[in-house]
Amino acid sequence: MSKDFVKDVTSMKDDFAQWYTDVVTKAELIDYSSVRGSMILRPYGYAIWENIQKELDSQIKQTGHENVYMPLFIPESLLQKEKDHIEGFAPEVAWVTHGGEEKLTERLCVRPTSEVLFAEHFKNIIHSYRDLPKLYNQWSNVVRWEKTTRPFLRTLEFLWQEGHTCHETDEEAHEETVRMLNVYAKLCEEYLAIPVIKGQKTEKEKFAGAKYTYTIESLMHDGKALQSGTSHHLGDGFAKAFGIEFTNREGKLQTVQQTSWGFTTRIIGAMIMVHGDDRGLVVPPKIAPTQLMILPIAQHKEGVLDFAYDLKDKLSKTVRTGIDASDKKPGWKFNEYEMKGIPLRLEVGPRDIEQKQVILVRRDTGEKQTVSLHNLETQVQEILNDIQYSLFEKAKTHRENKTTAVTTFDEFKNQLVQKGGFIKAMWCGDEACENYIKDETGATSRCLPFDQEKISEKCVCCEQEGKHLVYWAKAY
Amino acid sequence: MSKDFVKDVTSMKDDFAQWYTDVVTKAELIDYSSVRGSMILRPYGYAIWENIQKELDSQIKQTGHENVYMPLFIPESLLQKEKDHIEGFAPEVAWVTHGGEEKLTERLCVRPTSEVLFAEHFKNIIHSYRDLPKLYNQWSNVVRWEKTTRPFLRTLEFLWQEGHTCHETDEEAHEETVRMLNVYAKLCEEYLAIPVIKGQKTEKEKFAGAKYTYTIESLMHDGKALQSGTSHHLGDGFAKAFGIEFTNREGKLQTVQQTSWGFTTRIIGAMIMVHGDDRGLVVPPKIAPTQLMILPIAQHKEGVLDFAYDLKDKLSKTVRTGIDASDKKPGWKFNEYEMKGIPLRLEVGPRDIEQKQVILVRRDTGEKQTVSLHNLETQVQEILNDIQYSLFEKAKTHRENKTTAVTTFDEFKNQLVQKGGFIKAMWCGDEACENYIKDETGATSRCLPFDQEKISEKCVCCEQEGKHLVYWAKAY
Repeated sequence: MSKDFVKDVTSMKDDFAQWYTDVVTKAELIDYSSVRGSMILRPYGYAIWENIQKELDSQIKQTGHENVYMPLFIPESLLQKEKDHIEGFAPEVAWVTHGGEEKLTERLCVRPTSEVLFAEHFKNIIHSYRDLPKLYNQWSNVVRWEKTTRPFLRTLEFLWQEGHTCHETDEEAHEETVRMLNVYAKLCEEYLAIPVIKGQKTEKEKFAGAKYTYTIESLMHDGKALQSGTSHHLGDGFAKAFGIEFTNREGKLQTVQQTSWGFTTRIIGAMIMVHGDDRGLVVPPKIAPTQLMILPIAQHKEGVLDFAYDLKDKLSKTVRTGIDASDKKPGWKFNEYEMKGIPLRLEVGPRDIEQKQVILVRRDTGEKQTVSLHNLETQVQEILNDIQYSLFEKAKTHRENKTTAVTTFDEFKNQLVQKGGFIKAMWCGDEACENYIKDETGATSRCLPFDQEKISEKCVCCEQEGKHLVYWAKAY
Repeated sequence: MSKDFVKDVTSMKDDFAQWYTDVVTKAELIDYSSVRGSMILRPYGYAIWENIQKELDSQIKQTGHENVYMPLFIPESLLQKEKDHIEGFAPEVAWVTHGGEEKLTERLCVRPTSEVLFAEHFKNIIHSYRDLPKLYNQWSNVVRWEKTTRPFLRTLEFLWQEGHTCHETDEEAHEETVRMLNVYAKLCEEYLAIPVIKGQKTEKEKFAGAKYTYTIESLMHDGKALQSGTSHHLGDGFAKAFGIEFTNREGKLQTVQQTSWGFTTRIIGAMIMVHGDDRGLVVPPKIAPTQLMILPIAQHKEGVLDFAYDLKDKLSKTVRTGIDASDKKPGWKFNEYEMKGIPLRLEVGPRDIEQKQVILVRRDTGEKQTVSLHNLETQVQEILNDIQYSLFEKAKTHRENKTTAVTTFDEFKNQLVQKGGFIKAMWCGDEACENYIKDETGATSRCLPFDQEKISEKCVCCEQEGKHLVYWAKAY
């Protein structure tokens, strides 16, 4: 392909951060604005989010949850009701102090998350065990006052869903916490083709106000980890602070057990960094706004355009199909849809029409094949399925190659420098060791995986017993 | 029905405002929170919004628009770029002055609407006539610092969609303005069963920064009007202030022509006040989260529950069907689903099963009919269609009864006091008369209807020529 047509992207190997910035802007996922640290989600970026939303919303409803909408603002006194929570969030909230010309008597924070708003509402509407469980979800924007920001990964404002539930017992809340983590894991693996490690966050890394936090962690192409979704068992911390009580089956007053769980636009950053390459984005078919793009070749010749549009109508029944019949040069078009990571390209010209065939080109492998019109729909579907599968397998292999079990701290440091990725190592459970590792290596504890193994006797950092297997990594 | 079961609602005639508040809370559409002027959209209220959203989003996409997402915050300097716009909105915006512990060097307002953010982005991405038209839409929350608030009708924060488009010519922008007003009108009339008057706002009432504003106006049960959707031709005001220029077909630099248009959760307030009655909400079938509710009678008797659940499975294929098989008393259930305005209730007990029939009860008329199982699906669909149609016709008749043409100011005042509703009267076009009418009667100009008639020679207020027919009304 002639260099003239190419929107240049920095090579991943040369500068991964610059590669990322190039891809998010040149694939037209986002644009910057004069609002520091915020991003504009452009049509293509938002369409990917809509597809993720649609699938996740359907899963959330199928698991019995109802959507609601809470206010954007939280009065300062309300945010302060749960001590751990305010401590965790106070440094990173935006404060509204004036409404119109008038100074407010109480500051309002722009929600960084909505536990306290849900808690106040739950107190109003829950009275008896008959009112439980309450299974709510909200789609919304939230704001966290980050100093350094990056599109999708860390922005002042982001879009997400936050689930909030109340239960009769600790056990039920635990089951819910697991259930929703599994919904997230399935979405990542089956739709976004991103393999995840499920596990528990350490005390230090758990959500401010939670009893414990479950997480799914994924690994980016550059060997850094990304927290991809979290599910918190809140215990009765908020419930006690807000007095969310109900008359139980024995006729006694009891405090509810709560959970909360969230999934954000951040995952689009993960999708980019797991599947992308030096030609741009690679979007998994299940989540792609356009799964197949038709490019008519020599379209000025008689019959080509009609044929291409007929094909589009036919394929649109089973596949999200686009067509570019503009007068732009073929090279520009090839480059553009590769940059946008559209899974499959279909080329059709006069000779193909004559021979009752088309050319299909895979975005992930670049593989070209000539396919008979006779069984085109079946072939397209099969190739899309294969792309979906291959992307997941490739990402999984990459993660496995970048996961190293170590038993000594020297090994830990060496492997992290040489290979990056996940370091599996035993930990005594002491926060001092966790902090030491972070300070010395830059790696943080990602999670205590649900699949625990004992790979050595001692903590990788001290002489104490190694109680937990931990995945460590540098992370976004 | 025994009084014991009844959630009491104030009668409309006694106190319409209290009736409204009773309905929104007792039908569980909303709850209040400690956030002044904001509301919590509860599952039932949010489900209605989701249905409206789904239909409108589909219309917006079918008319060629793409969804995007802009930042929540607007730097003060950006808001100030278009003079009329800042003048109109400054008194009613919320200001963020602190991020975390730090005071900001520039205040950020929480978007009251997003014209300036779109304008800044359009400047970046539009260069040539080939980039036009740009047809964007955003689903989001916005904040306006209202002093007195009311659920749905006027709240500090509300949900909406805002369309923003750029065009080559004034004419194209005009067509777009009309097109989207028609989309809103169709949604109101065909889905929400709310008849609307289409027309143009006066200079005084138009959007701050627009060339002109088109509106749809509806009439509530108490005879007050409600602005139900607006579509603005922005001309080149924002485009000039922001420098949104493109190379036109003649190779010359030209400024774009813009439109914006919005539709909000406010419409749920209209739905309540147009269709509701003293037993609560009446939800039009097309927008109802549950269209038919099955209530098994004597459900402890053998076979009743199985039969009812089978019916639910069967009807769910074509109708959004619910079932309440809880142990609550029938009277409570009747009352609850009437309060929630579910269009159709299906009762089925042992005798009905024996006779292969069920009872259907319409929410709007209270009419009961016995329907054979044989053609139940068809009958249900027909009755739902009839309810949808009847609600619209009833609302239209009500509006016609409450619309009075007057030629003198005395008549104007008398009719407004006696009947309320819309007053049709000629206007000279002078803002002094518009202000005088408002001050003297409390009625504002709702619109200059597209269907203009000349009902008298002179302005209803002064001795000048009556140039325009205007709909006047007290309004929410």
